[in-house]
Amino acid sequence: MQLTKQTLTQRIDRVYDVLIVGGGAAGLSAGIYSQRYLLSTLIIDKGKARSFWMQELHNYLGLPPETPGREVLKQGKDHYLSLEGDYLNAYVEDVIDEGQVFAVKVRIGRQNPTYKTFRTRYLIAASGIIDHLPQLADLKNVFDYAGYNLHVCLICDGYEMRDQRVGVFGSSEDSLQVAFALGWFTPYITLFTHSAFEVGQKLRDRFAEAGYILNEQPIRQFLGENHQMSGVELENGAVVELDAGLVSMGSKYHADYLKGIDLTYNGGNLVTDAMNRTSHPRIFAVGDLKVGMNQVVIAAADGANAATQIWRDIRRAEGSRRSATAATAA
Amino acid sequence: MQLTKQTLTQRIDRVYDVLIVGGGAAGLSAGIYSQRYLLSTLIIDKGKARSFWMQELHNYLGLPPETPGREVLKQGKDHYLSLEGDYLNAYVEDVIDEGQVFAVKVRIGRQNPTYKTFRTRYLIAASGIIDHLPQLADLKNVFDYAGYNLHVCLICDGYEMRDQRVGVFGSSEDSLQVAFALGWFTPYITLFTHSAFEVGQKLRDRFAEAGYILNEQPIRQFLGENHQMSGVELENGAVVELDAGLVSMGSKYHADYLKGIDLTYNGGNLVTDAMNRTSHPRIFAVGDLKVGMNQVVIAAADGANAATQIWRDIRRAEGSRRSATAATAA
Repeated sequence: MQLTKQTLTQRIDRVYDVLIVGGGAAGLSAGIYSQRYLLSTLIIDKGKARSFWMQELHNYLGLPPETPGREVLKQGKDHYLSLEGDYLNAYVEDVIDEGQVFAVKVRIGRQNPTYKTFRTRYLIAASGIIDHLPQLADLKNVFDYAGYNLHVCLICDGYEMRDQRVGVFGSSEDSLQVAFALGWFTPYITLFTHSAFEVGQKLRDRFAEAGYILNEQPIRQFLGENHQMSGVELENGAVVELDAGLVSMGSKYHADYLKGIDLTYNGGNLVTDAMNRTSHPRIFAVGDLKVGMNQVVIAAADGANAATQIWRDIRRAEGSRRSATAATAA
Repeated sequence: MQLTKQTLTQRIDRVYDVLIVGGGAAGLSAGIYSQRYLLSTLIIDKGKARSFWMQELHNYLGLPPETPGREVLKQGKDHYLSLEGDYLNAYVEDVIDEGQVFAVKVRIGRQNPTYKTFRTRYLIAASGIIDHLPQLADLKNVFDYAGYNLHVCLICDGYEMRDQRVGVFGSSEDSLQVAFALGWFTPYITLFTHSAFEVGQKLRDRFAEAGYILNEQPIRQFLGENHQMSGVELENGAVVELDAGLVSMGSKYHADYLKGIDLTYNGGNLVTDAMNRTSHPRIFAVGDLKVGMNQVVIAAADGANAATQIWRDIRRAEGSRRSATAATAA
């Protein structure tokens, strides 16, 4: 059930089988599988998964290509709640490994927050990432277009940008390299540094050879209307017309709560085995937080793998049946 | 487009970037991704993927839990065709590695078939498996219930069988071991051998200890109506009432067309890397045919991985742009 400040007191002494940090595609899929294995499950979600911002999910099997990401999340949450999984809107601050269980410290509410500790046998890190966006004076202006035709994922939206005039917004030399893969879809590419970093001669030459334009001016704002970005206005007043944008500024990894636990990372991503187990036997990682492609359908599959492996672990350890009757009584 | 005997002659000289054997969840997802990477793609489908038989897909993120498998396949095929992928109803008989490309020999039509050869740079094996079903005198009777409450997948449908009286239909001692995992969901288990094989004393003791009933009589038919199996009638006339069945008789692997190519298998399953590449650099395997769990959402993710890796391979090899204009002209 959806837990509130009022109802969560009845859950506070419970040791969950599975606690999932993050209610995006990966966490919801894990929760659906976990509840269907009769494992007691709590999803803790801080709100607004990365897919929440996607206006159209073009490549998810089984859904029309104009389905918004938030519809998948809503359907998944309804599905999970229909299986009687617990769901709490809160922020996970810390996880402490107590040996048999984890203590998960949670902040609930923004104003006058309360603090609670939940306990769980297994933890699934499904808290994902969020893309850094261009820092302009008027940030609202950026949010007007992000997820519409200001894209953050080449794999997701390269097809939509084919033969379009695309602006690439980077945060470093390295981040601009995405232009060469974008070049598969369109030759009309302008690279923006927003005067935030230098570009060396070698990369300049490669851009020139590919026919890409390098623009090193500071940007004042994005132009457009009805969430369709039509170009950028520079600080010097000049306007660059564009059909679409691709932001390539790296990501924030939502994994601060794991800082007290020794886990294996590759960059910001958690390393897992094929069943999504991290280097800690009772911690699994799913979705964008783990090594691999950042795709909704892959996140959903990760959740299936992690929940299944946890079920196998618990079933083998308990060696006994847990019928629905027994689970409800527990 | 949907190819027919009439239209396929215009495709016969084309070398596809990607040819996908199988139009189930894995193949359709691979096709959607592949077309979105502007790779020319042909799906060859013999019809009736394993998920076609699923009356309710209970665990696929984003779809209501009563969605039939065939609806996912229909949505996926429409999606793929809307991206201008080619699709042919036919049977792949053989694949020959010609070095740079594969020659794929296809039989089209059941009566008065015609034979054609297609060529492709990359091959995705998405042809899956199909479950062996109990061989009764009246096989139609089996098909009446399969996919309804005569299940073939414990992970998919264990939840639906919780606390139910379940008959397990095996084909060997080993195949009956699934009962111990089923025991997580229900204690009311009857094991049927259909007089087809012997059960040793050690396993008999374990069944007795778990409280499972072993029935070694030959079965005459399933009982029930409106696709809801309500029990089995034995050859001796006795009736065993059941709420559900679980068939555990192994699977046929649809991979005969790969017999001429040296690939690494684990049992009947193709071994792949994390991006679904087999031991042959230009052959990928996705869905139930590869090592891993047999789940629709995992098949869909496999398709995303395979198509993405093929795109990376081709992009790096060609080192040049392929805008939509160029791809259409090619």
